[in-house]
Amino acid sequence: MKTKEIKAKALNTKKFIDEKCEEIISAVGNGYAINALSGGVDSSAVTMLGHKALGRRLKTYFIDNGIMREGEPQRVAAIFKKLGVHIGIIDARKKFFAALKGITDPEEKREAITQTFYKDVFGKLVRESGAKYLLQGTILTDIDETIAGIKRQHNVFEQLGIDPQRAFGYKIIEPLVQLRKDGVRKLAAACGLPKSIYNRMPFPGPALSARVIGEATPERIEIVRKATAILEKELAGTRAFQYMAILHNDRVTGMRANKRDFGLQIEIRCWDSIDARKAKPTDLSHGMLMRLAGRMVNDVPGVVSVTYNIASKPPSTMEAV
Amino acid sequence: MKTKEIKAKALNTKKFIDEKCEEIISAVGNGYAINALSGGVDSSAVTMLGHKALGRRLKTYFIDNGIMREGEPQRVAAIFKKLGVHIGIIDARKKFFAALKGITDPEEKREAITQTFYKDVFGKLVRESGAKYLLQGTILTDIDETIAGIKRQHNVFEQLGIDPQRAFGYKIIEPLVQLRKDGVRKLAAACGLPKSIYNRMPFPGPALSARVIGEATPERIEIVRKATAILEKELAGTRAFQYMAILHNDRVTGMRANKRDFGLQIEIRCWDSIDARKAKPTDLSHGMLMRLAGRMVNDVPGVVSVTYNIASKPPSTMEAV
Repeated sequence: MKTKEIKAKALNTKKFIDEKCEEIISAVGNGYAINALSGGVDSSAVTMLGHKALGRRLKTYFIDNGIMREGEPQRVAAIFKKLGVHIGIIDARKKFFAALKGITDPEEKREAITQTFYKDVFGKLVRESGAKYLLQGTILTDIDETIAGIKRQHNVFEQLGIDPQRAFGYKIIEPLVQLRKDGVRKLAAACGLPKSIYNRMPFPGPALSARVIGEATPERIEIVRKATAILEKELAGTRAFQYMAILHNDRVTGMRANKRDFGLQIEIRCWDSIDARKAKPTDLSHGMLMRLAGRMVNDVPGVVSVTYNIASKPPSTMEAV
Repeated sequence: MKTKEIKAKALNTKKFIDEKCEEIISAVGNGYAINALSGGVDSSAVTMLGHKALGRRLKTYFIDNGIMREGEPQRVAAIFKKLGVHIGIIDARKKFFAALKGITDPEEKREAITQTFYKDVFGKLVRESGAKYLLQGTILTDIDETIAGIKRQHNVFEQLGIDPQRAFGYKIIEPLVQLRKDGVRKLAAACGLPKSIYNRMPFPGPALSARVIGEATPERIEIVRKATAILEKELAGTRAFQYMAILHNDRVTGMRANKRDFGLQIEIRCWDSIDARKAKPTDLSHGMLMRLAGRMVNDVPGVVSVTYNIASKPPSTMEAV
């Protein structure tokens, strides 16, 4: 069955919210539902829908994996608290860093994060919660991008460590599957979420571990976290589609106090794009580039060199790894 | 004994050339002298002085180490041929790449090149030539930078594989020790050398191996050689102090023909500087940066990403490794 798309323009948010809440209520009945909130627009919108439908019968967990941006867990928790939505915050930093230890290949890093999230951390919460209904923020673009789409449901339970033979009774609810990103943003705004959520810049699933070339140790994540905080503050006023700081694995020569210092390099990327399929480096002023580089070498420990990416997508990609 | 500096402004090139030729003639007598020409301004000026003084009794060797820029050995040979100076060209590419094999540390790369140059290649030429007089393009700045300056002469013979106990009779002649770079440029012009030599942009001793982060294999040198040729052509019109292309060791994600391609990154540096002690990135236009990146990804095999360095020296340095 092909999912019927609802274009953002045609989306009647009030009607959509009412319909989806009814669907969730009728599916869950007197039971419990569970979901994971990342702070991204999709999972935030789903959390709001689930909360409207089920109140405290939705258990929402925010998993601090240690690779989020500066103050992100606190910021997301505060936003939902203000909206009267209870969020369980799970400190799983040690588990994620243990899984990432020694891994330098980007695909293996991604896999380690996915496995830790589903099997180890969220899977455990699902199994112990007694909730049989799993709310997920899957959107139409995710489905387009899943080649073996028909196997998705089966796979999710397997990923969660739930035997597919015994998974009977578990049910996934995906209220956003008819929407694309622009529709979800419109919905999120209508649900009362603040602009920092409904207009949030794209941020990768593997979070800051995707912003580190090579091993994602706690120390290296902390370095790129500092660089990211500086960049996001300095570029907040630009109309760029996305910007990011990347910590390289290569070391380069620098000088500190007249002595050679083999140090770190931070790469800055800032993209102009409509839909992320094609992208061009933003024409940041020379003054702004000098300012960014100055702040990086002064405020981020160990950094002696800073670059700005000037290649377009394709053949480049938005993220480095 | 402190070397008496001759400032570029005060340099009377005709008088200087006459005096240095007399000194060389009186030192070498009826013997032979030998020197290595790199194509840099210092060794080129020394070659011209030695040639004026000794004619064919100076044996000049240009050693092709495989890590020079595109067409550099041919270009240097053609320049000196036109000036009537005979240069022996030595193809030592295999020896240098054998010495560089497996080495990733920048200091070890430098040491491998120095050792191969002195002991293996040039040392052999010196020992077999019968020449007892070695002409060197040492300038005052080199002496300033050598902490153990008094040991230099001793060290050079040791480096050349000549037992210091038996080195009696060998003599180093350094006609440029009273000059700094600007004085040498003035002298080189007065010796009839073309602008491409006397006004040559600084280029490091370890040549393109200093422009490769990680191992300097023939394949990786060829990649950075192509990038360097593009950069030098595109930026020839700028008034920058120095510019360079650097091949990173880190690999980044790219896309070719809609498929993921884990590819290479080239970093471009272009410096504004008076004396290389401090330097700032040149304010190249966004259009020029886009053009450079476009040429790199289109014309240099395997490159999917290009950056422009935006950090200043200090804490950065001009060269990356």
